[in-house]
Amino acid sequence: MSAEADQRFMALAIALGARGLGRVWPNPAVGCVIVSGGRIVGRGWTQDGGRPHAETQALAQAGAAARGATAYVSLEPCAHHGKTPPCAEALVKAGVARVVSAITDPDPRVAGRGHQILRGAGIPVTTGVLARDAEAAQTGFLSRVRDGRPMVTLKLATSFDGRIATASGESRWITGPEARRMVHAMRATHDAVMVGGGTARADDPALTVRGLGVTRQPVRVVCARLLDLPTGGTLAHSVTRAPLWLLHGPAAPKAARDIWTRLGARLIEVAEEDGALSPNALLRVLGAEGLTRVFCEGGGQFAAALLRAGLVDEIRHFSAGLALGADGRPALGTLALDALAGAPRFRLRDQCVVGADTVTHWVRA
Amino acid sequence: MSAEADQRFMALAIALGARGLGRVWPNPAVGCVIVSGGRIVGRGWTQDGGRPHAETQALAQAGAAARGATAYVSLEPCAHHGKTPPCAEALVKAGVARVVSAITDPDPRVAGRGHQILRGAGIPVTTGVLARDAEAAQTGFLSRVRDGRPMVTLKLATSFDGRIATASGESRWITGPEARRMVHAMRATHDAVMVGGGTARADDPALTVRGLGVTRQPVRVVCARLLDLPTGGTLAHSVTRAPLWLLHGPAAPKAARDIWTRLGARLIEVAEEDGALSPNALLRVLGAEGLTRVFCEGGGQFAAALLRAGLVDEIRHFSAGLALGADGRPALGTLALDALAGAPRFRLRDQCVVGADTVTHWVRA
Repeated sequence: MSAEADQRFMALAIALGARGLGRVWPNPAVGCVIVSGGRIVGRGWTQDGGRPHAETQALAQAGAAARGATAYVSLEPCAHHGKTPPCAEALVKAGVARVVSAITDPDPRVAGRGHQILRGAGIPVTTGVLARDAEAAQTGFLSRVRDGRPMVTLKLATSFDGRIATASGESRWITGPEARRMVHAMRATHDAVMVGGGTARADDPALTVRGLGVTRQPVRVVCARLLDLPTGGTLAHSVTRAPLWLLHGPAAPKAARDIWTRLGARLIEVAEEDGALSPNALLRVLGAEGLTRVFCEGGGQFAAALLRAGLVDEIRHFSAGLALGADGRPALGTLALDALAGAPRFRLRDQCVVGADTVTHWVRA
Repeated sequence: MSAEADQRFMALAIALGARGLGRVWPNPAVGCVIVSGGRIVGRGWTQDGGRPHAETQALAQAGAAARGATAYVSLEPCAHHGKTPPCAEALVKAGVARVVSAITDPDPRVAGRGHQILRGAGIPVTTGVLARDAEAAQTGFLSRVRDGRPMVTLKLATSFDGRIATASGESRWITGPEARRMVHAMRATHDAVMVGGGTARADDPALTVRGLGVTRQPVRVVCARLLDLPTGGTLAHSVTRAPLWLLHGPAAPKAARDIWTRLGARLIEVAEEDGALSPNALLRVLGAEGLTRVFCEGGGQFAAALLRAGLVDEIRHFSAGLALGADGRPALGTLALDALAGAPRFRLRDQCVVGADTVTHWVRA
């Protein structure tokens, strides 16, 4: 197979893998394409909850046609016995003649052993094909394995002067219905939607994915040091609709803990730092729970704390064609920068028009 | 000629006319195309300083080929004797068989009389072709004639959270060299570059067009109520490089007026309103002086005053991939909005990537 064809089929595998984003944690969202004689005979991607794996799906689709075929996987096939036998062995057993993978799985249970199993069985393995694209698609899984925390996407929806509400707090709506719908689609590609307690109190949000026919809701994470959240609001009333995790500090009163536990929320205590929940600690906790992709929707203070700690990986910035002025509420809290050179920097990935608004995708520089 | 061909040649006339933007005030930037037997035989646009007119240029190029041809003009041909005979008469004299114009010139000295002269001479005139595009291209001229003020483009160059400097005032550079170069190109398409006194004091800007080989500099307008500008700065040292107009209030001290007059600046007194120069008054003054297109580069207070008064027609917003936080300097001053519905609204015209930054073009909704 030519290098060009390898890239073409790998691009398809990566795209298929992306279908699982937000649905497969704690597993990676992998895609697999099986090609025999230049023809695609099997396609698969990691299914909801992380099982079956992409290779299992693609091999099942290919059936006998897998024998002698080339398998493209967007991540090294797994090498460890979990609920099912390792995918590397399944590929050997199916008789594929060649495997092309994009990146090595840094999970210590795999870490090259998947490729080793294949090579040990006499199957040639080409690695590193479209590695950069695969890394970009799996930022969250890689971040969790390497750094012990999920990747964080920060969503901002602002006036063009960077405000998220009027001085009086009016914020509905700054962006249009198309942008708001796109936010729901973005939520659906993340394992969790996260806000600070101030936003939960001010906006009474549901934080669910609506209007898209989604059956698997992201976890809702609310970070409230003292658990001072309205027990009569939307979050309290919707615990059966989507998981609700409340991250709180050691000082959260017992009464509040009891109420929220009774309401059905999951409570997780997190260390404090400078009078607030430690951003590093809370993301480590979420990583340990298996989350790989977290969509943070504010508020400004919380977002600024994450930025200050260097924990924001990507930004989705919706900008509307209106001005709110310096008396409007800022999108971000204070960053206390000493110099411009110290400002958190992001690289433009893409931008597009959505309804009457623009949306810009920045990734950490 | 088909309607499709009419539109095609008119689009060309409008594009040619745009070449004069920023160079032809107090005249409109008009384009003219002369077409004979489907072939373009003459093209012209208003020349620097406003003369010769587009029609004169195009007719000169067409020569004898103008006889029996169709002339496309992006604005009704003039009907009044200025330094030269009216263009409507020139078209008649040249023997064109048909005239297609985009919009009627609202100048009371023309106002349909150009079309009338042509029709009176038996030449059929089609009007309204690509009228909307022609209006958009001539916003400034139309604004000056209809409302007595130039159009105002507000430039913003911000972090993605809408800040123009760190808390300590560091602002060089937020956007990259490509964006800054584009700002110079934008300045060149405006009759004047305008800032408030605060920006002139803080940034010591030259406000000239640099690096583009431009020979005709826009007027530099600085609005400083008390004329409290540094007499040893860049503006003071560059009066020979580009015109410098200082708009000040009645309370500006005589000593400051004398110094700046001696330095070569042009001083214009403007009425005050709520302790600042009246935005309406200052733009009317600039309109009366013949300016049609003003490029406002801040600062935030001044820009907010213009927005509050409903005087900003277009916005060019450069956004860089960095965060500066709520302690950074806001792009706009306070707008004192009672409700979100009262926020100044703009419609997206286009957006693009420039270097590592984005630039979005919003026009008044």
